[in-house]
Parts: sequence; C-alpha cells; structure tokens
Amino acid sequence: MKFTATCPTPISDHPHVLLAHGGGGRLMQQLIDKLMRPAFDNPLLAQQHDGAVIEFVGTRLAFTTDSYVVRPLFFPGGDIGTLAVNGTINDLAMCGARPRWLSAGFIIEEGLPMEMLARVVESMRAAAKAARVEIVTGDTKVVDKGKGDGLFVNTAGIGVIEHTGAISPASVRPDDAVLVSGDLGRHGIAIMSVREGLQFESVIESDCAPLADLVLRLLDAGIEIHCLRDLTRGGLASALNEIAATARVRIEVDERAIPVREDVQGACEILGLDPLYVANEGRFVAVIPERSAADALAILREHPLGAGACRIGSVAATGEPLVTIRSRIGATRILDLLSGEQLPRIC
Amino acid sequence: MKFTATCPTPISDHPHVLLAHGGGGRLMQQLIDKLMRPAFDNPLLAQQHDGAVIEFVGTRLAFTTDSYVVRPLFFPGGDIGTLAVNGTINDLAMCGARPRWLSAGFIIEEGLPMEMLARVVESMRAAAKAARVEIVTGDTKVVDKGKGDGLFVNTAGIGVIEHTGAISPASVRPDDAVLVSGDLGRHGIAIMSVREGLQFESVIESDCAPLADLVLRLLDAGIEIHCLRDLTRGGLASALNEIAATARVRIEVDERAIPVREDVQGACEILGLDPLYVANEGRFVAVIPERSAADALAILREHPLGAGACRIGSVAATGEPLVTIRSRIGATRILDLLSGEQLPRIC
Repeated sequence: MKFTATCPTPISDHPHVLLAHGGGGRLMQQLIDKLMRPAFDNPLLAQQHDGAVIEFVGTRLAFTTDSYVVRPLFFPGGDIGTLAVNGTINDLAMCGARPRWLSAGFIIEEGLPMEMLARVVESMRAAAKAARVEIVTGDTKVVDKGKGDGLFVNTAGIGVIEHTGAISPASVRPDDAVLVSGDLGRHGIAIMSVREGLQFESVIESDCAPLADLVLRLLDAGIEIHCLRDLTRGGLASALNEIAATARVRIEVDERAIPVREDVQGACEILGLDPLYVANEGRFVAVIPERSAADALAILREHPLGAGACRIGSVAATGEPLVTIRSRIGATRILDLLSGEQLPRIC
Repeated sequence: MKFTATCPTPISDHPHVLLAHGGGGRLMQQLIDKLMRPAFDNPLLAQQHDGAVIEFVGTRLAFTTDSYVVRPLFFPGGDIGTLAVNGTINDLAMCGARPRWLSAGFIIEEGLPMEMLARVVESMRAAAKAARVEIVTGDTKVVDKGKGDGLFVNTAGIGVIEHTGAISPASVRPDDAVLVSGDLGRHGIAIMSVREGLQFESVIESDCAPLADLVLRLLDAGIEIHCLRDLTRGGLASALNEIAATARVRIEVDERAIPVREDVQGACEILGLDPLYVANEGRFVAVIPERSAADALAILREHPLGAGACRIGSVAATGEPLVTIRSRIGATRILDLLSGEQLPRIC
C-alpha cells in the first residue's frame, strides 16, 4: 500500500513508530491518512492509486515510488534487486501504464560485501531488460556499519498511459467481476522459509515478476478495466479492503475460488499464516465489468504469468463498504484489514 | 554526485563497501563507473548529468532521484525533509528543468518518535509549497530497531524542460566563464557543528534552498547555459572535477574569487576541512559563454539566493582535463578529487 489508500478507521496515537506501521495493515493506513496525506494534499495524491497519474501535454504519465527493505536480500526466486525493479513496474502497471523509465537509489550499509552489491545490480539489470524498461538515473549513499541492514533500494518509475480509461477505485461499479491473476502467497512464504530456516518438500519460490505485459494485453483487447491492485504487503485481503473502502462498495469473494498452491497452504499452516494476507510480488486483482470477465480470464490465461488466473468474486449490488468471504463450508464472514504486520520487511 | 559522472581513474578493488564509497570522491566514482554504469548502460544514463533528460512527445522531461541519509536529522537551517525536497529540486534545476512532481519514500527505523516524523513531513510540505512542486506519490517502510538510523528519505523528481538548449558537460567550450551562485561551505559546517557540539559566535545555518528559480531566470533572459552542477557531496572541487573530466577540458579557478564567509572559513580551520570540498545544498556552479558572464551575474545577484554570485574562473583554451586553482599567494596547483569522504552522511 502506498500513500494512496484511505479507510475510515479510528486513529489511535502511538508516540513512536512501530514495525507494524510498515506492515500494510490498519496502522500503516492510519500513519498515511493522519500524517502523509494531509501534509501532501493535492489532487494527484488524492487519486489513491498505486501511482500518481499526471496529465501532461495531451497525454498521461504514471509516476510511482517504492523503497525495498526486504530481509534477507536474497531468497528463492529473486532478490532485493528483482523486487525493486518488478515492484515498481507493477505499480505502474496497476495504473494501466506502460513502464518506461526507472530511477534507482541505493542505501548501502558500510561493510556490505561488494560481491553482494554486484549481484543485486546484475539482478536489476536483468529484470529491467526483461521488462523493457530503462534505469536512467540513480544515486548511491553509504551509511555507517550498524546504521542500516546491508542494503535498501528505492526505485521510482515513470510509465506512459496509452489508453483512455480511468483505472481507479472510483470506476468500480456494482456487479463487477473480481479476478486474480494467479495463485497466492508464494512471495511471503519464500521469504519466511529462508528466515525461519524451513525446508519444504519442494522449494517454494517467490512469484516476483513484471505484470505490465498482462495488463497491457487486457487493454489492447479492449477490456474496460475498472480497477487494478497488486497484491503486495497485506496480500489479497488488504488490497480488496483498500478498493472496497475507496470505492465505497461491498466486495464478496468465495474462498473456494481463491487459488493457493497446496505446498503454500501447507507452509502457511506450519507458520500460522493466512495466505489471503501473505504478500505476492507477481499477482494482481482486477475489477472489470461482468460482461468482460470471461474474455479477460481467457486473455490472462494465455500468458505464462496469468496461467492461473481465476474469478474469485464480485462487487455486490448494494451494501456498506467492506469485504466478505464465503468460506469452504458456506459461512460468510468479514475479511478485515489486519491491525499491523503479519510479515514485516517482506518487500 | 549521481550515476552521472565519469572520471578516468584507476579502479581499486575493495571487497567490502566502505563509508568512503558514499562520500562523493574518487571511491564513489569508481563504484559508479565500475558497477552501476556498465550494468544500467543506456543512452539516457550516459548523459552523465544530475538527472536523465527524457525526450517524450515532442518535449523533454528531466528525471532524477536521491536518497537522503543525513545525520543528524535536524540541523541549523533545515532538516532531512527540507534537504530531500530541495536536493531533488536542485538536481532537476541543474538540467534546466522546471521541477513539477516529486515522489517521497520513507524508510523509518522502528522507535522513531512520531513527532519527529511529523516535523520532517511538515518540512517537506513547506519546502514543496515554497518551490511550487507537488509531492504526488509516496511510500513508507519500517525497519527493525537497530537496522536503520531514525529516518532515511528518498525523493525522485520529474521536471519539464521548457528551453531548447543542451545543458550538459558536452556543451562546455574553451574560454567559457565559471560562476558560483554564492558563498560556499555552510551546509557542511552546519551539520558538523551539530555533530561535534561546536558553538561558533553566530550559528552557521545550512544554505539549503531550491535553486530552480535562479536557473529559470537565467534561461528566461536568454543566457545560453552550457553546464550546471549543484555543489553537494564533495563540494565545488568535486563538481568542477566532474565537469572537467566529462567535458575533457581544463578548468582554472582563482581562490581569491571563491566566496567563503569568514565564520565558515574559521570553522573549517577548526575542523580541519577545506571549504572547497564541503557540501552545499543551495549553491551551484554555472559554465556559460564569456560574453554572457556579466549579464548572468547581474541576473543571479537580483535574486536573494544568488546575491553572493561570483565569477571564479574560466575554462582554459587548451590543456588536459583537470582543475587548477591559483592560490592567494599566486601559486597554481591541481584541485583534485578526494579519495573518499571528507564528511560522511552530509546529505
């Protein structure tokens, strides 16, 4: 979640910043809503999107940023470098933009092995090349030993919006279909398995991947996309809550329809995690008109990164802004935001 | 210095990143030239500028980024927030761009007093408002206590280039005039006085300020600016060395013409610093045609931020790429890059 979401929650004051303020849950929303949004109030920030959409000389640009503080720096399926490139590409993609130019800012802790820095830089190079974006400007800072954690990477990105639609929570309509682009939970579990030293039968790799091609294919096919959100910190549950709160709609999903791989489900059970709150780095949720749902799914499934796309629910015709989930046994409950973090420093 | 400078120096391998790799000197150049530039090689990065200049639908955009890790967070004349906004504005200004949109990425150490974060955010709001830029997108991350240093802030910025000139080291010509926009060394001394607990007769405040208006006035007056560089990490000496190396020209400056306030000079002597290497956050060097030097100085001096503008030297008619300085007693010596940092974590 970026400075872009809002949720009508009570503000509770904490005199100090907690780890939970960065976890993608309610505390982070409060920090953003209480502190960041009022200070930087402007029409672009008020769009409440994964990036700002800037009108410029008859065209539209998307602009976004993310700092990456993932721990450990290297994990199955990627590293902080692949994450920093793909994560910002994905924020641009969620605006329906074609990602073009990235910046890279490195905050390096004194003593980081040069070889590790070189591996991260190489990952960024490869990820940028694969996604056909250019890293055009950058900056390096070094902080004293003990005042950082190896390496933090910030990327900002500019994309070009070539379509004319309004991809935004404000475009969400009653009876829209809710799709996800594939199975959930792999990034978070890949990180946790390294941190906790867990070994599963097979290595669970992060789903970290660039999502722009998938989104652009939908747009090229004329699908009217109402809203997109990538499923990073806080996972599917948080993304749906952000959309429901901003769009002032009720979203209903069906647990049986939500794809979670068996090994990921098993790992979640061992770790005491709910896969609906676990971070993904190559998955998004799309809200589109009911009439386009089948076409959109077919287009997504043609692409390797969307092969596991599913419809998981709908926007309700009426109802207050919240997310409900129908469980495997048929009971319906509210799928709420977590208060703090389930998994700190996942991205 | 960003990923934008190059200098023909021998590469010395260090197995670990040193604090000096972030200091704005030769080691930082090596890190960038050896590791960053080859990986992210593309025509925009090769411009070797404070920001990338992007050609887009018949216009030009400047794009830049900087992470700010200054210690302490608050200092006379500013804080990490004013620095993060003005510093990125200044990188855009050095491309001759009108700064328009900024992103803000916060990496917060768990336990930071919320009140300190709020003060920094307020500083950013005020600095953005004063410079008529909008902070349009942002991100917050929290890292565990002991894995950060209170607060790091990244900003990236987009500016619009409204003139048609090529402000770049490649435009520098023999016999060009070299100007600075005001007195040097205040930012570095303001930081050091807090760190070292030094008290001088008067408080020396940072010169932190947005420079875009000054540059735009020169452009509006039709001054043909050949090159601009703000005098941050590594100070005037490093900026001149970057320009000389990239433009393949010899730059000659006169120490007696370089403005340094008496209290700053005194503080430098106490601290064992050379003001020519001390960071500024509201000063730049401009290389312009000899014929425009007087007009440019007059325009700069009309503005409060350029009241102390001076001509400090010239580009030589011939000579190998280096910087020479004529001292107060008339001797000429090479003004070289420092190897590492004189003042770590100054910005």
